[in-house]
Amino acid sequence: MEIDYFLCEKGDNFTALDNLIEWISKFGEDPKGGITRLLYTREWLETQSALKSLMDGKGFLTYYDEVGNLFGRLEGTVYKEETILTGSHIDTVVNGGKLDGQLGIIGGLIAIEYLREKYGEPLRNIEVVSMAEEEGSRFPFVFWGSKNIVGTVSKEEVQGLRDANGIEFSEAIANSGFQFKNENSERTDIKAFIELHVEQGGVLEIEKKSIGIVEHIVGQRRFTIEVFGQSNHAGTTPMKYRKDSLFAASCIITEIIHKAKEYGEPLVATVGSIEIEPNTANVVPGKAKFTLDIRHINHEVIVDFSNEVSNIIDNVSKEMNIETRIDMYMDCLPVAMDSDLVKMIKDVCEGKGLNYKLMHSGAGHDSQIFADVVPTALIFVPSHKGISHSPEEFTDSNDLAEGVRALIETLYLLAYQ
Amino acid sequence: MEIDYFLCEKGDNFTALDNLIEWISKFGEDPKGGITRLLYTREWLETQSALKSLMDGKGFLTYYDEVGNLFGRLEGTVYKEETILTGSHIDTVVNGGKLDGQLGIIGGLIAIEYLREKYGEPLRNIEVVSMAEEEGSRFPFVFWGSKNIVGTVSKEEVQGLRDANGIEFSEAIANSGFQFKNENSERTDIKAFIELHVEQGGVLEIEKKSIGIVEHIVGQRRFTIEVFGQSNHAGTTPMKYRKDSLFAASCIITEIIHKAKEYGEPLVATVGSIEIEPNTANVVPGKAKFTLDIRHINHEVIVDFSNEVSNIIDNVSKEMNIETRIDMYMDCLPVAMDSDLVKMIKDVCEGKGLNYKLMHSGAGHDSQIFADVVPTALIFVPSHKGISHSPEEFTDSNDLAEGVRALIETLYLLAYQ
Repeated sequence: MEIDYFLCEKGDNFTALDNLIEWISKFGEDPKGGITRLLYTREWLETQSALKSLMDGKGFLTYYDEVGNLFGRLEGTVYKEETILTGSHIDTVVNGGKLDGQLGIIGGLIAIEYLREKYGEPLRNIEVVSMAEEEGSRFPFVFWGSKNIVGTVSKEEVQGLRDANGIEFSEAIANSGFQFKNENSERTDIKAFIELHVEQGGVLEIEKKSIGIVEHIVGQRRFTIEVFGQSNHAGTTPMKYRKDSLFAASCIITEIIHKAKEYGEPLVATVGSIEIEPNTANVVPGKAKFTLDIRHINHEVIVDFSNEVSNIIDNVSKEMNIETRIDMYMDCLPVAMDSDLVKMIKDVCEGKGLNYKLMHSGAGHDSQIFADVVPTALIFVPSHKGISHSPEEFTDSNDLAEGVRALIETLYLLAYQ
Repeated sequence: MEIDYFLCEKGDNFTALDNLIEWISKFGEDPKGGITRLLYTREWLETQSALKSLMDGKGFLTYYDEVGNLFGRLEGTVYKEETILTGSHIDTVVNGGKLDGQLGIIGGLIAIEYLREKYGEPLRNIEVVSMAEEEGSRFPFVFWGSKNIVGTVSKEEVQGLRDANGIEFSEAIANSGFQFKNENSERTDIKAFIELHVEQGGVLEIEKKSIGIVEHIVGQRRFTIEVFGQSNHAGTTPMKYRKDSLFAASCIITEIIHKAKEYGEPLVATVGSIEIEPNTANVVPGKAKFTLDIRHINHEVIVDFSNEVSNIIDNVSKEMNIETRIDMYMDCLPVAMDSDLVKMIKDVCEGKGLNYKLMHSGAGHDSQIFADVVPTALIFVPSHKGISHSPEEFTDSNDLAEGVRALIETLYLLAYQ
C-alpha cells in the first residue's frame, strides 16, 4: 500500500513526507536563499495551483474560497454538515524556511490520505486547507487567510494597504483572480480546527520532545520607551552634571530583564531594538529610544508586569532627574486552545507512545484566529536550534513523522467516531 | 584712548571684543548655521588674510610660517631672542561656534594692543598666533598648527590623507600657497605659551566662576566593546535559554558608569554609541557593540579603571556565558600645564579680584602640544550650558573680558618684567 511508503512505523524512512516538502519548496524558491512566496504573487499562485492539482490527482474534492484559501475535501458519510479542518498557511516570509506554514498543509494532506487508505470514508467531512496568508510579509496585515474563513475581517481593513512596490491590496487580489468575500459568508460547518506547525523556538529540542501540545498562545504587549537626557561633551562634563540617557536606559533594561526572570516562566520580556542620539563616542547620549515586548499566557500577568515596568521606569526617571515616555503600541490578548482537544491529543500521544510536552506558543498562529470561533488545537514539532524565518529552518524527519502521526490519530477520533 | 573703548573696567561695555568676534565670524559663515572654516579652504585663507590685514593696520609685524600659521609680533627691546606666545586655532568644526579657537586669537590681539598702549614696548617679544588647524575637521589629523610650531610632526604623517571630497592633504596645502616645513625648523625662541579658550563644558557656569586656570589636560582611552549573544525569537525563547547581547551590554554599561561615579572626579567614563543586531522589536539581540571613552588627569588612574572595566566585562561574560571582545583604539597620555605659570595666573586673579577656579580640561587643546616643549598655560572662560561645536556656543561678555584681563596681566608679567 502506498501509505506504507510515505508514513510507516517509527524508525523507517518517511520518504514521502520529506519528498513532498522538497517538491512544494521549489515553488517560490528564492535565488537569495529559502522561499519567498508572498500573498497573491506569481509564486504564490503557482504554489496553490500545484497543490490543487496534486490534491485533484489524489481524488480529493478541491475548491478555493473567494480570497484564495485552497481546500481539499474528503466527504463524510453521515454528518455531512460537519467538517473537521486541518492545515496551515502557504505564504512565507522573505527568504523563509521549508516548514513554517506548509508543513501543516503537506502533513494534513498525508494524514487525510492515510486515513482514507486505512479506514475509508469518514463520518464527518475532513478538509485540509492551504491558507492564503498569515505572515504579513507583503502587506502590513496578518492572518488574512484564517480571518476570512471565520469571518472576522472586512475588506475595508485591507483594501487601501500597499506593498513595498506601492501596489494596493485590492489591486493585488484582483490581479490574482480572487476577490473580497461577501459579508456573512463565514462557514458554520467547521467543528474543529487542528494545526500542525513547527515550534519556531528551541524548547522541544532542548527538552528532547518530538511533539508539543499547545495549551495557550501568548498575549503580547509592545512598548516604545523614550529617555530624554542631555547631550554633553564626554570630556568636559563631570559625571555629577550629566543626564546620560543611555546609562538610564541601561539601568531600566537591566531591571526589566531581572524582573522578568524573577516572574518566571512563561513570561518573556525582550528589548529588541535601541537607538540613541547623537550616537557618537565622545558625546554623552542625549536621547535613547528602545522597544519592549512582553508575552505571557495570562493577560493579567501581562498587565501586572507592565505596571512593574512603569514603576521601574518612573523610579529611574526620578532618581536621575530624567524625563521618560512610555507608549504602548500593541496589546493582544492570550488565546486558549480547546481543553477537550488538548486532552484528546495528550491521550493519543500517551496511547501511541509519542514523546510529547504540554506547552504554550510564544508566537502567533492561525489557530488563535480559529480558537475564537471553533474548538481548536495546535500541535508543534521541534525547530532545530529554534531557528525559523530562515533557510536554516530544519526539523528531523522522525519528529516530523511523529507530528503527522499525532495529527492522524486526532483526526481519526474527530472524523471517524 | 582707544583701549578704553574696547576693554575698560569691569561693569562697562566691552564693545570692541564683541565687535571683533562678530567681524571675524563673518569669514566662513555657513548658510546652515555657525562657522565652517576648514584647513586650507577658501574661507580659511580669507580669514587668515583678513586677520593679517587687521594686525598690519595696527602696526604689528606679521608673518606666516611655512604651513600657514599666522603670527602678529610686538618686538621686545631687551631679550630679542625670547618670545612670549599667545593665541589659538583659526579653524572650526563644521557649523562651529564663534568662540572655539578664534577667541584666543582675538583676545590675544586685544591683550597685546592694550599692553602696547599702556606700557609701550615689552622687554621680550610678544606674539599672537592664529594657528592653522586644531580640530581635525577636514583631514583625519589634529593639532597640525601647533605641532608644526613645536616641530613634532612630519609631512609623511599627513601628505596622503584625504578630505571628504578625496583631496589629498599635500594638494590642499599646495593649492593654498603654503608648503610642508623643512625638518629641524622648529622655533627655539618661544619661552612661554598662554592660550585663552572657552571651557566647552558647563563647570564654570554651574559654579559661577569667570575664569578656569587649567592644571592638567586629561589623558584619554577609547574602546570598542562587542558582545556576541544569540539572536532568537522574542516569543518562543524562554528567558533561561537566551543569550541576550543587549541585556549583557546594559549590565556592563550600568556597572561601568556606577564604578566611574565611585572613582569620583575627575574621572569621566562615557558610553556614547551603541549598535545592536538585528535591532528588531521581536528578536532577542544577537550582537551588541558599544564604545567607551575614559578620561582622567592621571594615566595610572586610567589604566587602573581600564582594568576594572575588563573585570566587569569578564564577569558579565562568564555569568551569562556570552562572548565579548574589547579593543582599545585610542590611548593618549594626560598633560600637565606649567605649575609656575598656573601659580602666576592664580596670583594675578587674586590680585585683580578675578573670580577663578583651578580645574582640568576634559577636552584636548593646542596647549597640550606646546606643554611638551615650553612652559604653557591654558585659561578658560565659561561656555553657556557647556555647549560647544555648535552655533549656540555663547559666553557672557563680562566673562570674556575677565578672561582677556587675566591674559593681559599674565603677558605683562612674562614680557615686561
